Amino acid sequence: MREAMRRLTLRPHHVGSPYDKDNAEWLRDQFKSYGWDASIEEFQVLFPVPTERVLEMVSPTKFTAKLQESALAQDPTSNQKSEALPSYNAYSADGDVTAPLVYVNYGVPDDYLELERRGISVKGAIVIVRYGGSWRGIKPKVAYEHGAVGCLIYSDPKDDGYSQGDVYPKGPYRPADGVQRGSVMDMPVYPGDPLTPGVGATKDAVRLDRKDAATVMKIPVLPISYGDAQPLLAAMTGRVAPESWRGSLPITYRLGPGVARVHLKLAFDWTLKPLYDVIAKLPGSQYPDEWVVRGNHHDGWVNGAEDPISGLVPELEEARALGALVKQGWKPKRTIVYAAWDGEEPALLGSTEWVETHAAELAKKAVMYINTDGNGRGFFGVGGSHSLERFIGDVQKDIIDPETNLTVWQRAQAQAVASGDKKARGEARDRKDLRIDALGSGSDFTPFLQHAGVPTLNGGFGGEDGGGIYHSIYDSFYWYTHFSDTSFVYGRALAQTIGTAVMRMADADLLPFEFGNLAETVQGYTAELKELHTTVSSRIAETNRQIDDGIFTATNDPRDPIAAPKSEPLAPALNFAPLDNADGSLTRAASRYEKAYVTAIAAGIDPKTIAAFNELVAKADQALLDDKGLPKRPWYKHLLYAPGLYTGYGVKTMPGAREAIEQKSWAEADVEIGRVANAVQREADLVNRASDILEKKPRVQP
Amino acid sequence: MREAMRRLTLRPHHVGSPYDKDNAEWLRDQFKSYGWDASIEEFQVLFPVPTERVLEMVSPTKFTAKLQESALAQDPTSNQKSEALPSYNAYSADGDVTAPLVYVNYGVPDDYLELERRGISVKGAIVIVRYGGSWRGIKPKVAYEHGAVGCLIYSDPKDDGYSQGDVYPKGPYRPADGVQRGSVMDMPVYPGDPLTPGVGATKDAVRLDRKDAATVMKIPVLPISYGDAQPLLAAMTGRVAPESWRGSLPITYRLGPGVARVHLKLAFDWTLKPLYDVIAKLPGSQYPDEWVVRGNHHDGWVNGAEDPISGLVPELEEARALGALVKQGWKPKRTIVYAAWDGEEPALLGSTEWVETHAAELAKKAVMYINTDGNGRGFFGVGGSHSLERFIGDVQKDIIDPETNLTVWQRAQAQAVASGDKKARGEARDRKDLRIDALGSGSDFTPFLQHAGVPTLNGGFGGEDGGGIYHSIYDSFYWYTHFSDTSFVYGRALAQTIGTAVMRMADADLLPFEFGNLAETVQGYTAELKELHTTVSSRIAETNRQIDDGIFTATNDPRDPIAAPKSEPLAPALNFAPLDNADGSLTRAASRYEKAYVTAIAAGIDPKTIAAFNELVAKADQALLDDKGLPKRPWYKHLLYAPGLYTGYGVKTMPGAREAIEQKSWAEADVEIGRVANAVQREADLVNRASDILEKKPRVQP
Repeated sequence: MREAMRRLTLRPHHVGSPYDKDNAEWLRDQFKSYGWDASIEEFQVLFPVPTERVLEMVSPTKFTAKLQESALAQDPTSNQKSEALPSYNAYSADGDVTAPLVYVNYGVPDDYLELERRGISVKGAIVIVRYGGSWRGIKPKVAYEHGAVGCLIYSDPKDDGYSQGDVYPKGPYRPADGVQRGSVMDMPVYPGDPLTPGVGATKDAVRLDRKDAATVMKIPVLPISYGDAQPLLAAMTGRVAPESWRGSLPITYRLGPGVARVHLKLAFDWTLKPLYDVIAKLPGSQYPDEWVVRGNHHDGWVNGAEDPISGLVPELEEARALGALVKQGWKPKRTIVYAAWDGEEPALLGSTEWVETHAAELAKKAVMYINTDGNGRGFFGVGGSHSLERFIGDVQKDIIDPETNLTVWQRAQAQAVASGDKKARGEARDRKDLRIDALGSGSDFTPFLQHAGVPTLNGGFGGEDGGGIYHSIYDSFYWYTHFSDTSFVYGRALAQTIGTAVMRMADADLLPFEFGNLAETVQGYTAELKELHTTVSSRIAETNRQIDDGIFTATNDPRDPIAAPKSEPLAPALNFAPLDNADGSLTRAASRYEKAYVTAIAAGIDPKTIAAFNELVAKADQALLDDKGLPKRPWYKHLLYAPGLYTGYGVKTMPGAREAIEQKSWAEADVEIGRVANAVQREADLVNRASDILEKKPRVQP
Repeated sequence: MREAMRRLTLRPHHVGSPYDKDNAEWLRDQFKSYGWDASIEEFQVLFPVPTERVLEMVSPTKFTAKLQESALAQDPTSNQKSEALPSYNAYSADGDVTAPLVYVNYGVPDDYLELERRGISVKGAIVIVRYGGSWRGIKPKVAYEHGAVGCLIYSDPKDDGYSQGDVYPKGPYRPADGVQRGSVMDMPVYPGDPLTPGVGATKDAVRLDRKDAATVMKIPVLPISYGDAQPLLAAMTGRVAPESWRGSLPITYRLGPGVARVHLKLAFDWTLKPLYDVIAKLPGSQYPDEWVVRGNHHDGWVNGAEDPISGLVPELEEARALGALVKQGWKPKRTIVYAAWDGEEPALLGSTEWVETHAAELAKKAVMYINTDGNGRGFFGVGGSHSLERFIGDVQKDIIDPETNLTVWQRAQAQAVASGDKKARGEARDRKDLRIDALGSGSDFTPFLQHAGVPTLNGGFGGEDGGGIYHSIYDSFYWYTHFSDTSFVYGRALAQTIGTAVMRMADADLLPFEFGNLAETVQGYTAELKELHTTVSSRIAETNRQIDDGIFTATNDPRDPIAAPKSEPLAPALNFAPLDNADGSLTRAASRYEKAYVTAIAAGIDPKTIAAFNELVAKADQALLDDKGLPKRPWYKHLLYAPGLYTGYGVKTMPGAREAIEQKSWAEADVEIGRVANAVQREADLVNRASDILEKKPRVQP
């Protein structure tokens, strides 16, 4: 794994770079050498790269931002400037603007409410916003919605710089000129090629005009280092930023707008670039048309050792081991498909275009997609379809954690006990299964789960691997082998965990889906929605009352005035009954299924029953899709899991209903509660049909 | 008030300085000019001033701390170096030590537990600790208890420097070389002259030998600026400090011990210094032997405009106004005693020695002590004896807030609504009275309330007056008149509030004590004790369980190891029954009293009844004293209110029982619950006797 990482990170390997293609070909050849049927599938996608980047302060003093990361003598790949992408945000608009600066904290909608109460508008301004608190693409989107003409995103040293520990190369944290590159495409609307929503970006695909692509950012956006940000922030005037908005630069953080004005000029090459997805297969011996798909991307923003190669080399190791087993005579019952995706960094391009291209086939064949991305040290974290919660938990019980010699499951359980409140601790101790997370976005699982309804898992080790090199030139082989999983023992543990999951899923007779945990989880989401509704309702009522009672006026400091918020209409009651009914159906169906499943396995089952059962159960997530998709973003079809429209990577469960309540769109909330209730009812029906199959078919003679 | 402040802050006026005496004489003469009988009462106290201060880093590089605050052209009193006390901590030990640095966060006991789990000891080290999180005197005390040989206390810019806003003189916050002076005497054991505990430090008092004075610090302690602290902290090696320990200097905060070693040398002049308390009286016309006492200190660490002169000039203004009323014919029924205390800053010296000297007289005569100290802008905050909660609330209802034209009470209520949780909001809206705080320590009310049992109040305006000049040379007339209550409208409001309270208390026929709120408050403290006991018990049980289950081992990061805490014996159940019974008695007594009081007033009361009633009720806090005092600190005799032995200024209510539970001294907790129950029962008995007096005496004919 160490040598594979060294090879794959030797040169920058972003989309369109020579080494990106070189890596893809090498990966294909590695799969082939392990005995897999491997090939490269190509797409053509819109991927802008910068042709001009200028950032300068024009008043009160002149300052030209460096926009460069220094090469370090210790790190041999840090000087490859001619091949590397400079620091930029992909899918920023072209632009040339000069305007005053306004500091907007994390740049989420609530931050603008705070500014508004202080009489501060970003209309016509360039916002400066810190990384963190939301996915980066949300920041310029919300800034644009509030009238800003440009956006600078900087890394505060409080979050991943000197406040956290020694900076690179002495330690793992972000040095003064380290920059976080990254996409600012509006992926919560749809990921993948902006010009081909919903369809594969093949050579001959029908493409939108760029100006009609909804996901391309409308204003220029540039990421900068704290070295470049400090002079700008220090020059700002205006009111002092609220306590929780302050980072750890040695300055007074101020809101502006004031004397500090900057000139931001960005231009991009908007030509199409090629994508090289590597797809490798081991054919199934009994159920060749049932696919277990596993993937990790191979493209990086620069040398990308941690992100993504630390997750890709375990995948290769699994492929090598499975290949070796095949040579020893093992025949997986189902077809195993291993993918190394290109273009994850800009917009989940490789996975999305592949899923869109093969949508019909996946709907029929895919029984699971399992994803990894960068891997670190510590605890196994996993998210995905809750019908697979028990399955992936059982896998973790058979893998040894390299630092403690406990099982990976035991260590994750200990972590849940150590970090949980009383309720979470009790559950971690007494619940049969550890909870898995719901998935938002941020890696290649999104098109599988949220667009195609493939039962999905995403996992990796972390929690002991702090650093500040994310999406910078310093995410290198030198960094990873000095500060992260330096001896690749967690790389091995990841290969063991995911490889075991793939093998079990590929060889199971009855697919190992379980619905009791899903039903309980769905009930939990329902309870959360009700609580959210209560919270939002009470907050509106309380705020209105305080406005009426003059509380804001009475507590206002005339030297630091903060206006009262606006009154809002009271929240109506919502009809949760359909959802409660559907939850009940699913709970009863899951309980019946559990009994039928255990009984059937004990008794033995005939092949036709198995085939009918598996065909049905693999559609467990498809039953939760709605072809109309989510409000304002039809590409996202899963009614249980989606990234937040205003949080980005962060998950929203029951997203249609939850976001309608958050946005106080009460009529929409009632509609969406009904839609998710229908989805849960469809799931209950599917689970009951699965029980029908298990209960009614005659037993095979032993 | 502006001119009085200018006069009083013209030169440094600390204990023993020429201008301290000059101010005292001027104050006496002012009182006299208003028609008061005024004089100076003198004491002789141990007050050390530095003769040598050296702080230098000896490795890894040489650095000599400046230990000086720069004069500023804008601030005319900032250059009086020859008269001013340099930056130091009073009652530090002499010392000459060279040792490695260890960073201990706020230096409270829990911080040492965190260090211990990381294998770090301060034995033989010099600790560097930041201001905040506890009273400063706790920091070297706890450091000494853990084996440190020296202590540096610095002001982090996160707390009152550039993170908060512009630094002085551009803004009100602490500049890089501003230093917070202050006492580190162990005042939670006893305040006042260390050599004369419990008795007045008169010329001929019997004095302890200094080495036997329990409250003098045992190791050298020095406060430093963040300008001087930064090179030391930046040079430290060792593990990175936990997230919540980090300030906002542009460095990685580390724990040490490591390469950074410092040399700290301090020597003091330990001679006795004179104290000049100014005592002014207006004789009572009807009840001359009932005293309403009001005070504010006059000494400052340097020029002391905010602390204490901003509270003293309203007191003078009250005295002027009361004097004018007397000239117009008003005769207060009770004697009014106005005091300007000396030596508050080092150790509440002036008030404590005066109270100790006049203890017997105060026990007989004092019906109330009302204290102020520095005053700012914003909301009226008040604490004290809960039997005076309604009284002081009613006063606030008749004073106009200068910024909002609401009453001071309404504005405080609005603040309670705005900042409270749901329960606190409901109470602020619906409870008849606003709650007042319980008093810990930090100003001259302590000897009155906690040693002598005089019913006490302490109040002032604040909440809109941030700054970073506390106890530095920059607490000046220039600072105060540019950044705080610049037009003295809150000075006027304070004079109106306290002056009104004094007049009402002086002229009331029946003393306006009310016990329903006290009873309810005492029940609240009892509930808190029970909850604290439950919390501590569960935490011990949970931690032991996690130790037994190997949770700490399982979640340990081998590259950043944190040892498990030690197992502790489980907490036994405690006997709260005596306290519940006493609380019930007090509640019933208060309810009976309320009825008797209203009935008596409506009916009219004869002078003998009034005299008997008042004599009894003025002892309401004396009933709550226990002559044996609190565990380990017999000087503190009040069983409801005390400063915390390990928090300093912060109050501990029902301190004996509360601290025993916190310290897990279970046998002591049971004893202390019994003692406070007895005190509450004595209070109930007193309140019942007061009702007896009101109910049984014959009515006066109208």
